[in-house]
Amino acid sequence: MKKEKKRTSISSIGEFGLIERLQKKIIQNNPQTIQGIGDDSAVIKSPKDQEILISTDVLFEGIHFDTTYMSLSHIGYKSVIVNLSDLYAMNAMPSQITISLGISSKYCVEDIESLYEGINRAAKNYKVNVVGGDISGSYAGLVINVTVVGFQKKNQILYRNGAKKGDLIVVSGDLGSSFLGLKILQREKEVLTEHKIPKLAINEIEHKLGEYKYLIQRQVKPEAKREVINYLKEKNIKPTSMIDVSDGLCSDLNHISKASGLGYNIMESKIPIHQQTKNASLDFNIDPIAAALYGGEDYELLFTIPPQQKKLINQADGLSIIGKLTDFKYKQTITKLQGGVVSINSQGWDHFKNT
Amino acid sequence: MKKEKKRTSISSIGEFGLIERLQKKIIQNNPQTIQGIGDDSAVIKSPKDQEILISTDVLFEGIHFDTTYMSLSHIGYKSVIVNLSDLYAMNAMPSQITISLGISSKYCVEDIESLYEGINRAAKNYKVNVVGGDISGSYAGLVINVTVVGFQKKNQILYRNGAKKGDLIVVSGDLGSSFLGLKILQREKEVLTEHKIPKLAINEIEHKLGEYKYLIQRQVKPEAKREVINYLKEKNIKPTSMIDVSDGLCSDLNHISKASGLGYNIMESKIPIHQQTKNASLDFNIDPIAAALYGGEDYELLFTIPPQQKKLINQADGLSIIGKLTDFKYKQTITKLQGGVVSINSQGWDHFKNT
Repeated sequence: MKKEKKRTSISSIGEFGLIERLQKKIIQNNPQTIQGIGDDSAVIKSPKDQEILISTDVLFEGIHFDTTYMSLSHIGYKSVIVNLSDLYAMNAMPSQITISLGISSKYCVEDIESLYEGINRAAKNYKVNVVGGDISGSYAGLVINVTVVGFQKKNQILYRNGAKKGDLIVVSGDLGSSFLGLKILQREKEVLTEHKIPKLAINEIEHKLGEYKYLIQRQVKPEAKREVINYLKEKNIKPTSMIDVSDGLCSDLNHISKASGLGYNIMESKIPIHQQTKNASLDFNIDPIAAALYGGEDYELLFTIPPQQKKLINQADGLSIIGKLTDFKYKQTITKLQGGVVSINSQGWDHFKNT
Repeated sequence: MKKEKKRTSISSIGEFGLIERLQKKIIQNNPQTIQGIGDDSAVIKSPKDQEILISTDVLFEGIHFDTTYMSLSHIGYKSVIVNLSDLYAMNAMPSQITISLGISSKYCVEDIESLYEGINRAAKNYKVNVVGGDISGSYAGLVINVTVVGFQKKNQILYRNGAKKGDLIVVSGDLGSSFLGLKILQREKEVLTEHKIPKLAINEIEHKLGEYKYLIQRQVKPEAKREVINYLKEKNIKPTSMIDVSDGLCSDLNHISKASGLGYNIMESKIPIHQQTKNASLDFNIDPIAAALYGGEDYELLFTIPPQQKKLINQADGLSIIGKLTDFKYKQTITKLQGGVVSINSQGWDHFKNT
């Protein structure tokens, strides 16, 4: 017989009681933290000769995540990763995070502990400290706001606006896989809704959909690309601009192009697409290139390098040169597989836009 | 004839369009900002010999604010103030803020511009920069998460746990006024709901309730107590611990008492209460002392000083010595106006607790 999980109501222990319970699980992963949770603010040691970087992202239940097919632990993990990714995209090392939660009455203490289990796991894997936060009731399911703080020397920080004409465009990993993972999970949800099964267990999905395991993992448990930052440092590669691919390749490349006052041309044949993405694209009758261009949530790093550094990129596993920066008058174009250059639509993910 | 206000739908300009419009209104109030809104993260100049402080607070519509009797501009202002207050409570100077917004479909572009008008005004008044943020759709009305970053020398930072036995307890300004302001606004809302009037204009309320203008302002447009921090510095007063009064005097004093491992005794006769608070308390049949002890949202500073510094506090306008720290075994007590010492309940505001 399956044991009923304990469900402690949050109102029975209150906001301070919940904070106390969560605080016990927080571990120190970063020696720069002077004061973590437990005072009016956190205190962080200011490192010599490095500037401070700060970024924030908010995730809403029903918009950014769906608890039908994502465990709370995965949601916690992912909410940290998307923020760390923003700091790596500046070539900086994340160091501390704060977590604000809005929690609706359907959640119990054990649920929030599961969420924090994922948060703490990501914090441990990426050596950042959870140093503060806020907890409130919410009328709209779960709301998670993560703010990340990190550091880098001033001359090592990479912005979006440093790309030069002729620079090569490089992307890490592969694109479009997270989008196809989402499509698969949404299809599974529909099937289960039909059969009135309330929730999917991630291991059941993975068992059933083993052939698409990679795609599902990319969606529910993405990783931030610290190893790319480390590789660039190790090989002394100096990108001229960088961004992370969160809204889709086109949208994010457009940010670099716009900020740097340039156009770009990318080659369809060079865009890295995983075999599972190609297979699943067939199932959904989606062009895998479109998934890569507009899909989003890849959390790969997209950067530009001077053409002289081409060789160093070609030597690396998991880095692809996909095009180059051009004069602005050429605007954004893609060289099709079958030949021919066409203008591309730079519309990525936008929470408000009617498209 | 009253001109209809323009209402631009957010979906017509999209998330990036909205960010662009808001970005234009942001002004630079702080020279430490290297990169503000517009990249993957903000970059802040790390000041020499100072540590970094960071704090975050989330505000939900319907829980922390009510748009029936608060303008969006006031909501924006207040959401910044409550965060700055946390940094002053560490004896630190706030320097940058990030703003995450969740926006439901009932809000238009002009609404969010009003909200930002208040955010920018607070930023200007307190010399902080809005350096980043995130914007998302929301199913739960308006959600505002503010994170504040600031700086202070390590040996100047004040924690909750530094109080010593015999230290005097000092509070700035007056207590309970914001709570009575809220009561008045809630009563006005009920009256208008009865008459099916959808919304109060703050100037109409102030006109109608001129006798309680101060209380309403304390609720809808609180200020953070920077001048107290400046006074302490100027007079070389060295508090041993500090916190801001956001949850109510008892709850916040309890944090100092618990963190410092001590008890306290406060004197009812010494608790600073504004005349309007006393008058309104009569209207609502509330004990003004209870409003001061449990009301919350005062954003005054509460700190402890060694008894030798008593004179410096007595010389200051707007600082009251209300009691002292005692051995832990005495726990939390209050000396009543009519004499006699009683134990006090330290329960302040808690969003989840059933009381």
